[in-house]
Amino acid sequence: MTDKTLKLGVAGLGNVGSGLVQLVQRQDSLRIPGRLEIACVSARNRSRDRGVDISNYAWFDDPSDLAASDDIDVFVELVGGSDGPAKKSVEIALESGKSVVTANKALIAEHGLELAARAERSDAHLLFEAAVAGGVPIVRAIRDSLAGVEVERVSGILNGTCNYILTEMLTSGAAYTDVLADAQRLGYAEADPYLDVSGMDAAHKIVILAAMAFKAKPDFSKVSVAGVDQIDALDISLADRLGYRVRLIAEAKFANGGVSCGVSPVLFPVNHPLAQVGGPLNAVLVDGDPVGRLTFTGPGAGAGPTASAVLGDIARLFHGPATAPFGVAASTLVDRFIASSDGGAPSAYFIRARLTDKSGAMAALSDALASSGVSIDTLHQDSGGESGAAPIALVTHPCSRTEAEAAVKKAKALDASVDAPQLIRIEA
Amino acid sequence: MTDKTLKLGVAGLGNVGSGLVQLVQRQDSLRIPGRLEIACVSARNRSRDRGVDISNYAWFDDPSDLAASDDIDVFVELVGGSDGPAKKSVEIALESGKSVVTANKALIAEHGLELAARAERSDAHLLFEAAVAGGVPIVRAIRDSLAGVEVERVSGILNGTCNYILTEMLTSGAAYTDVLADAQRLGYAEADPYLDVSGMDAAHKIVILAAMAFKAKPDFSKVSVAGVDQIDALDISLADRLGYRVRLIAEAKFANGGVSCGVSPVLFPVNHPLAQVGGPLNAVLVDGDPVGRLTFTGPGAGAGPTASAVLGDIARLFHGPATAPFGVAASTLVDRFIASSDGGAPSAYFIRARLTDKSGAMAALSDALASSGVSIDTLHQDSGGESGAAPIALVTHPCSRTEAEAAVKKAKALDASVDAPQLIRIEA
Repeated sequence: MTDKTLKLGVAGLGNVGSGLVQLVQRQDSLRIPGRLEIACVSARNRSRDRGVDISNYAWFDDPSDLAASDDIDVFVELVGGSDGPAKKSVEIALESGKSVVTANKALIAEHGLELAARAERSDAHLLFEAAVAGGVPIVRAIRDSLAGVEVERVSGILNGTCNYILTEMLTSGAAYTDVLADAQRLGYAEADPYLDVSGMDAAHKIVILAAMAFKAKPDFSKVSVAGVDQIDALDISLADRLGYRVRLIAEAKFANGGVSCGVSPVLFPVNHPLAQVGGPLNAVLVDGDPVGRLTFTGPGAGAGPTASAVLGDIARLFHGPATAPFGVAASTLVDRFIASSDGGAPSAYFIRARLTDKSGAMAALSDALASSGVSIDTLHQDSGGESGAAPIALVTHPCSRTEAEAAVKKAKALDASVDAPQLIRIEA
Repeated sequence: MTDKTLKLGVAGLGNVGSGLVQLVQRQDSLRIPGRLEIACVSARNRSRDRGVDISNYAWFDDPSDLAASDDIDVFVELVGGSDGPAKKSVEIALESGKSVVTANKALIAEHGLELAARAERSDAHLLFEAAVAGGVPIVRAIRDSLAGVEVERVSGILNGTCNYILTEMLTSGAAYTDVLADAQRLGYAEADPYLDVSGMDAAHKIVILAAMAFKAKPDFSKVSVAGVDQIDALDISLADRLGYRVRLIAEAKFANGGVSCGVSPVLFPVNHPLAQVGGPLNAVLVDGDPVGRLTFTGPGAGAGPTASAVLGDIARLFHGPATAPFGVAASTLVDRFIASSDGGAPSAYFIRARLTDKSGAMAALSDALASSGVSIDTLHQDSGGESGAAPIALVTHPCSRTEAEAAVKKAKALDASVDAPQLIRIEA
């Protein structure tokens, strides 16, 4: 416990910002190695009821003015967005040698390299634990604790909104749009859900982890991104019949000197650890030598968990000089992100089609698959009922993605095919 | 990446020490923010084949002489044992202002308070990530990352040997002594398994986590300890029939200003996350406000995982001044460990008895339970076969431990009772 006091400037007073103010107000019950004082705040609307009293803190309309203020030691950026006021204010704070703590994944994923270099030039801290997996302390684990591990792969469930939607679609059988609307009512999804459901949010997060794990220049442009918005309730229930759960997986791998990074739906057997992570939880798997596999699970979003992660970073500021934001100096990060591709490694795939209830439809589908080199391991067909379109789900024997995609293309072109078939990779 | 070089003195060249030497020899593939050089080593036997070349390192017969050497910056203590050469050499290193990195749980659990005070007086680092849960970075997570969390409970599986034994006893149906012998052959258990199977090793680890989580003076004398050595194959198979798994759980709770800390076998429903942690893995659950529950899982022992944790601590030494070993200054740690007792909180219990195959035996058991205020929720009885002693397992409705213990005492005194009944708490 030092006698040092750090003066915070908090920009952004949404759920996380208000949660942080509450935590700082009860800091004596926590384990902060010094005193924290909120000196100034900034937000879009000064008078909004946030459930916390902010009347004692100096007010700034513009976060950039707050970042420039001499009354703060630390700039806490909770504004959000990869550009605009968030980026500008963080640049101003770092330029003046102030430490920055942020929960902004888009900012770090898209501009982390230049911001890290700027922080290092000023000997300023730039910390972003809260940007990935909310309350799960995975950033510091990978950056610092696992410095003695040669990481091979980082993967997991990094978006709680998508995981909640996938879990609810299975439980309730409801359609994607209905479950999304429920999630918005419950506060699990934003009014504009695009970043979450498109997979972009998880993509931002995996880029940050990959940069640290693989000493790589973060390069968001190389990340392949698919979301949950193309998954329909039928896919989820048929996958369930075959013994699988759908999860939106973010993954970064290091092989042959390149880092490939992507986000996509994946099927897991029901007894797989990731299949058992339900609701809004996050889970991160780190595979490395010589540690094997580590798993970190916990709440990946929400005011409390995210604010506690911000505060854990702020506590770090009492512990001496700044270290490189990505663990090693930004100038030594290697340009090694490559376009993601799993065309090579064979895998089993889940294919779901809807075929008209005519004789020969199934034979046509089998032919389409076989002629692409794809053979069927297990298959489940439901009755088409009154619709006359029978849902069919099958699991292939291991094949390449190229083969699987060719098979699905041929299946889609069949006369019997009612709509575009679904294709999802299976991980054992 | 700094240009700084740290010179290491490694005392103890068993599996972990040899693993560390190997990792340092390939440090370029890792993410150490500086250069590491092994300057000196010490072990009991200089000529033993360890699979690593140590001929370039200066040799010391006595770890205390190594700790005193001016040729090292960092003393890495892998000797083991709570007292003797480990304690003496760590004291010498800290006294001379050298940083100490250790994997020694017994040393920190039993003498952590005085060693932390000594380190703080010398502004020396005293780091012990590898002392708890092997490769799982739980020490730094609780000490640093979760500084903004008010921890309520830390619990989990902290001894991989015991978890391996419990898992194998279920899978193979073999007796405790046979599985232990197998574990020794496979290297999962020490030649002297006492510290592991008695629960002492897990007790050392939970004391360390509790001290950090609750700002408490570590006080090993207050910890209640039970191991797996009293669990028999019958308990495990009957628990399985009733839908439960036995796990050896270390637990520390904060309530009413006191920290209670203990190790004991606990039953979990088969779908509980801890029931699904099998083999030599460790898993730590942290419950706190406002984060909820975090789970950390991974290899809790073994040369590679433990050595990587040691190296993660060594990497920390490049990052500026030492911080308090327990997160806050040793002088501010509160004397708040209290004798562990779960006599108060009602819980369901698993009771296993062996009764002679005589009429009225079951009625006598039911009476014994009822007269202690214990009622039966579910019950399973096997045939006694040729032994004439029928194994009975039952799950009680929630009752206090005092009631459950009284019931078991009465059951043991029954004429029909063949041996002492087993009593294990159930957690939902």
